[in-house]
Amino acid sequence: MKIRQVTVTPVAFHDPALLNAVGVHEPYALRSVIQLHCDDGVVGLGESYGDDAFLALLDAAAEAVTGMDVFHLGLIEQAVARVIGGGAFADSHGLTGGSSSSKTVLSVFSAFEVACLDAQGKAVGRPVADLLGGAVRDRVPFSAYLFYKWAAHPGGEEDAWGAALDPDGIVRQARRMIDRYGFQAVKLKGGVFPPEQEIAAIRALRAAFPELPLRLDPNAAWTVPTSLKVAAELDGVLEYLEDPTAGIEGMAEVARQAPMPLATNMCVVAPEHLDPGLRQRAIGVLLSDHHYWGGLRHSQQVSALCANFGVGLSMHSNSHLGISLAAMVQLAAATQHLSYACDTHWPWKREDEDVIVPGALSFTDGAVAVPGGPGLGVELDPEALERLHRLYLDCGLRRRDDTGYMQRVRPGYTPNTPGW
Amino acid sequence: MKIRQVTVTPVAFHDPALLNAVGVHEPYALRSVIQLHCDDGVVGLGESYGDDAFLALLDAAAEAVTGMDVFHLGLIEQAVARVIGGGAFADSHGLTGGSSSSKTVLSVFSAFEVACLDAQGKAVGRPVADLLGGAVRDRVPFSAYLFYKWAAHPGGEEDAWGAALDPDGIVRQARRMIDRYGFQAVKLKGGVFPPEQEIAAIRALRAAFPELPLRLDPNAAWTVPTSLKVAAELDGVLEYLEDPTAGIEGMAEVARQAPMPLATNMCVVAPEHLDPGLRQRAIGVLLSDHHYWGGLRHSQQVSALCANFGVGLSMHSNSHLGISLAAMVQLAAATQHLSYACDTHWPWKREDEDVIVPGALSFTDGAVAVPGGPGLGVELDPEALERLHRLYLDCGLRRRDDTGYMQRVRPGYTPNTPGW
Repeated sequence: MKIRQVTVTPVAFHDPALLNAVGVHEPYALRSVIQLHCDDGVVGLGESYGDDAFLALLDAAAEAVTGMDVFHLGLIEQAVARVIGGGAFADSHGLTGGSSSSKTVLSVFSAFEVACLDAQGKAVGRPVADLLGGAVRDRVPFSAYLFYKWAAHPGGEEDAWGAALDPDGIVRQARRMIDRYGFQAVKLKGGVFPPEQEIAAIRALRAAFPELPLRLDPNAAWTVPTSLKVAAELDGVLEYLEDPTAGIEGMAEVARQAPMPLATNMCVVAPEHLDPGLRQRAIGVLLSDHHYWGGLRHSQQVSALCANFGVGLSMHSNSHLGISLAAMVQLAAATQHLSYACDTHWPWKREDEDVIVPGALSFTDGAVAVPGGPGLGVELDPEALERLHRLYLDCGLRRRDDTGYMQRVRPGYTPNTPGW
Repeated sequence: MKIRQVTVTPVAFHDPALLNAVGVHEPYALRSVIQLHCDDGVVGLGESYGDDAFLALLDAAAEAVTGMDVFHLGLIEQAVARVIGGGAFADSHGLTGGSSSSKTVLSVFSAFEVACLDAQGKAVGRPVADLLGGAVRDRVPFSAYLFYKWAAHPGGEEDAWGAALDPDGIVRQARRMIDRYGFQAVKLKGGVFPPEQEIAAIRALRAAFPELPLRLDPNAAWTVPTSLKVAAELDGVLEYLEDPTAGIEGMAEVARQAPMPLATNMCVVAPEHLDPGLRQRAIGVLLSDHHYWGGLRHSQQVSALCANFGVGLSMHSNSHLGISLAAMVQLAAATQHLSYACDTHWPWKREDEDVIVPGALSFTDGAVAVPGGPGLGVELDPEALERLHRLYLDCGLRRRDDTGYMQRVRPGYTPNTPGW
């Protein structure tokens, strides 16, 4: 089944003023929607990053894969590698572990791989999970992803979540999110305030939700000694500590003494990091992300590798729409070795803003039921796509720039990595 | 697509008197043919071991998977694990690295996984390679697999290959095999004679075939010092040295000083060996075998893991029929990281003895073209299956026993592992 034409549509959607170690989310998040128009009228859907430099790579790859068979994923990967070549796409926020040629190829390929699998599933009348060995669970658990945040973007209206700038605000946010989605695990994005304040927030969460597993992710804002101090103070409180410090060597040093496992989506983010990361025992949990790791099949291979090395597996998330959520759910459903509830930014998206027809994906008790329909199990809404594309055109943002935005709000701001 | 009924048919086929470190092949090799009879009349084919203890495990698993969907490989694996439980199937020859509970489950599951993929491919009209990411090569290279051998089984007629008990005999065998199949790599099964004689055979092969990569596999018949001595003497002659000595620690010790990579199908044969084997850098090449590693998808995962750790990949072979060869070819076709020509016992099988309709698989220049038809691309020949099943019933063999056979021929024989 040949790819006759590829459409890559940049879209934007509203994003609250979420704080992190390098700044604050801008008012719009950018994504791209990939459509593979195939023989027989089948259209395969993919979703990926929306920064302009990445869109250029997607466009180059789109031309290279046109005419190829959606079942020939290995050849499509080779074709993408040929056109992307030695180039490396550097994200502009630095929260995903930097860039490399291999990671760039895998990131671009991933968007097409997911779309090919969606097309395959639609063609054969099977959910994508069935193309990945079949679902081993019918519901995929996610965690409540808490952020320090402003009540509003500067000059904008206060959003429904309100401000969260101290332990009380974080607990209030958690309660609202858990009431609404039923999450049974909680992650706090840290690296925003000095470690003592974030430790206090975690302790407040522990008091408010005595039974829920907790995680803290300062995005490598800490030195090794600070990481060890926080780890010791939160012994018995955190199920894992995510990216306390930068780099495999630093993480390995922390891991040797920290009482809880360390997780990462920053120091082991490309194939070349697996050997040193695992040999040095730098991590206890890999936060996999199919957008980094070359799609769903390669992500399963990474999961199998983690299982063989005794490393736990969860999933990382960036701001995303329904196609990516569907892909995460299909992948997680078919992945035997999935140790923890996955991350998702889903609650931070407006409920009425997406590119898919509503109803296919919903959260009950913090989990999403695996759609049973063919392919990813979601349907593109052409009017909604057009609407979010217009938002992209109108919003003026062309790349994610949390730091630049923060600096416009607070002149002189510098990222907190490595700060404390 | 549900499995309505499973048929497991033990078969036997003639095998020459091939020598190895633990004895000699008996006059018949045993295998099993697995048929999954599915909805819509689709029949999925698998092939595996034929020892009676293994057949009992296949039968138990067959019952457990009846009624399941051929796309639900993860659930089928879980069902197999439940019925096989903590049991371990020990091969009776010791040439495949011993047994463990995990390896036994994966071995039994493998037979069903391949048959499920064949059924999936037939149902959707795609070759199995397309269910594994698509072929990245259209021909799969194999190596000439040379054996020291007797001209005939005791009391039997001399076979067409004749004896090979010294360097001249080995070169004669290689020439005949290469003339016939076009192989472009050569492996000698060693561990039969003292190392000096096998070194001489390798040197004779080098002289006769100056351009062809050579390998030597003594099946762990040597001590560490002997292994190091042979490795030093064959520096620049062997592309890899296979299982010179037993165990991960011994192999790691040899690997630290040997000038060529070490390959294994004995010390890293189950998931629990990957971490210690790779961390200790015991091997440079994994001889993967889908019959061990839980089928084609898991074998691809192991290949990806090897790629990430800089370990080469080739394929191990036991005596096999056409269904297994088709599975190896589909897998190898779709596996990006395949570093060396694969092993196969194919030339040792009589050309007119198989369970598949002839013509789908043939060797040109040492390689097999990937069949383009649906599923594995081979068709079961019911009459041929019946014939080889009768041979199984009549031959009286119920388990492979190279050592016992040798002891019946040469009373007092003991295996050469570890001998020299």
